Amino acid sequence: MALTPLHDRVLVERVEGEEKTSGGLIIPESAKEKPAEGIIVAVGEGARKDSGELIPMAVKKGDKILFGKWSGTEVTVDGKELLMMKESDVLGIIS
Amino acid sequence: MALTPLHDRVLVERVEGEEKTSGGLIIPESAKEKPAEGIIVAVGEGARKDSGELIPMAVKKGDKILFGKWSGTEVTVDGKELLMMKESDVLGIIS
Amino acid sequence: MALTPLHDRVLVERVEGEEKTSGGLIIPESAKEKPAEGIIVAVGEGARKDSGELIPMAVKKGDKILFGKWSGTEVTVDGKELLMMKESDVLGIIS
Amino acid sequence: MALTPLHDRVLVERVEGEEKTSGGLIIPESAKEKPAEGIIVAVGEGARKDSGELIPMAVKKGDKILFGKWSGTEVTVDGKELLMMKESDVLGIIS
Amino acid sequence: MALTPLHDRVLVERVEGEEKTSGGLIIPESAKEKPAEGIIVAVGEGARKDSGELIPMAVKKGDKILFGKWSGTEVTVDGKELLMMKESDVLGIIS
Amino acid sequence: MALTPLHDRVLVERVEGEEKTSGGLIIPESAKEKPAEGIIVAVGEGARKDSGELIPMAVKKGDKILFGKWSGTEVTVDGKELLMMKESDVLGIIS
Amino acid sequence: MALTPLHDRVLVERVEGEEKTSGGLIIPESAKEKPAEGIIVAVGEGARKDSGELIPMAVKKGDKILFGKWSGTEVTVDGKELLMMKESDVLGIIS
Repeated sequence: MALTPLHDRVLVERVEGEEKTSGGLIIPESAKEKPAEGIIVAVGEGARKDSGELIPMAVKKGDKILFGKWSGTEVTVDGKELLMMKESDVLGIIS
Repeated sequence: MALTPLHDRVLVERVEGEEKTSGGLIIPESAKEKPAEGIIVAVGEGARKDSGELIPMAVKKGDKILFGKWSGTEVTVDGKELLMMKESDVLGIIS
Repeated sequence: MALTPLHDRVLVERVEGEEKTSGGLIIPESAKEKPAEGIIVAVGEGARKDSGELIPMAVKKGDKILFGKWSGTEVTVDGKELLMMKESDVLGIIS
Repeated sequence: MALTPLHDRVLVERVEGEEKTSGGLIIPESAKEKPAEGIIVAVGEGARKDSGELIPMAVKKGDKILFGKWSGTEVTVDGKELLMMKESDVLGIIS
Repeated sequence: MALTPLHDRVLVERVEGEEKTSGGLIIPESAKEKPAEGIIVAVGEGARKDSGELIPMAVKKGDKILFGKWSGTEVTVDGKELLMMKESDVLGIIS
Repeated sequence: MALTPLHDRVLVERVEGEEKTSGGLIIPESAKEKPAEGIIVAVGEGARKDSGELIPMAVKKGDKILFGKWSGTEVTVDGKELLMMKESDVLGIIS
Repeated sequence: MALTPLHDRVLVERVEGEEKTSGGLIIPESAKEKPAEGIIVAVGEGARKDSGELIPMAVKKGDKILFGKWSGTEVTVDGKELLMMKESDVLGIIS
């Protein structure tokens, strides 16, 4: 079973409970709107330009990303808790 | 009798009361704005670009979709309770 | 005497008091913003694109439509109570 | 003496106190924002498109119009009380 | 000494205290936002279109105008109290 | 040392405490949002059009300007208190 | 390990606690929204124009910048506290 995001949405699996990642990225604890880490599970086709053409997504399946902690809508697919959010909620790609 | 959505609206039949779908997608219960599942019954022609051309719809009749639980306006057609909503209220396609 | 809507407005005659239409469309009673049925009496030329061209209307005189119950401004023409509203307030066409 | 509206504004002489016009259009009395009748006295050149060209006005001097009762700014020219409003405040043309 | 307005701003000298102008235009006294009369002292080059070209101003130095009474910012140049406002605050040209 | 404004920002040195300038421009004292005089110290490259091209700035280094008194953000460069503001906060050029 | 900003975001290392920089730029203490100094650590590809093309960034890695003190979201990469912000939050480049 699959859930395909529409337009410029992405489906993200949160990487939870890691105070320090193997790469050394620490999620700050006291910040008001703390960013979180996740893995891109699926991406939409992209938003459409005024001319009707698709704007390709800047992230792809498998990307490790940083996103605003309160971004997105929770869904559960095949037992996994995932987040559906807009690409614009993705702050950056971790590599 | 039929109800044809205008512009970029879609007519959706809600799939109600399923705590777990056959495919395994569980609708979370505690989330504030919980997404719901539905089937697309009819779609509009699409919104118009600045140039006046139609932007084709990304969903089609029969698609199983995930949408924000409070999206849309309730209508009843031939005894079925349906929802009229904008395509942008559709979060993703379930397959 | 006639009242011609400007731009993308439409003039609508409300179909009142029908709990169930001949086609079977029932207007829900408990919904907060209940849609209503009506007949298009007159349509404007359409809105203008950025390029100055007219965008043709998606509805025409005689169309049976569904619209948001509180949409439009009431006017009385030749003794008939009509509603002047924007085409975007029209949810769909009933056929 | 004359007052020439700028851009997409129109100068309107209100037709006051008519509960029923000769053509049969009755202004509703209980509606919250009741439309009023008027005659176009003067029109501006029109708004400008993004390309800088003028969008011609959809109303002209002499047109009998319906407009939102609270639309426009009151001015007095040569003893006549007139209203300066945007063309978008004009609901329709009465003929 | 001169003060040159930027972009689509105009510099206006208010015509004050005239209850009735020679041409017969009377400023209403009881209206909530009463328009005022003035003379254009200087105009900017005009706003820029998306394409970067200038949109020429619709008013010029010397024009007698009607403007919203509370429009603009007061400045004093060579002892004269003037108003700096946007061209869109100008309601019409008096002739 | 230098501080180069980004995009359509300008760096302004306020001309303070002058009740009357040599040219005769008096800053009104009782107005709620009083304009102030300043000298342009540095300008950005300009904002970008939708097409990606730069829109050239309408002010240049050395221009004596009038700006809204509360416009901009205070910075101190080499001991001088300056203001960083958007070009749109500049009301006009004094000459 | 690296964190690559998406779109028009930049990753900034704050230059903290400097009351006066070597170049003489002093951060004002009493201002309500005080700007801060920082070094650009990484930049995104840039935002996209309506036509879908990238708008190149106006800042680059290594630039010393001034930014609004409360701009951005705090992240920690390899033990360094950094800020992820939009390029539009960058006030100017210090040189």
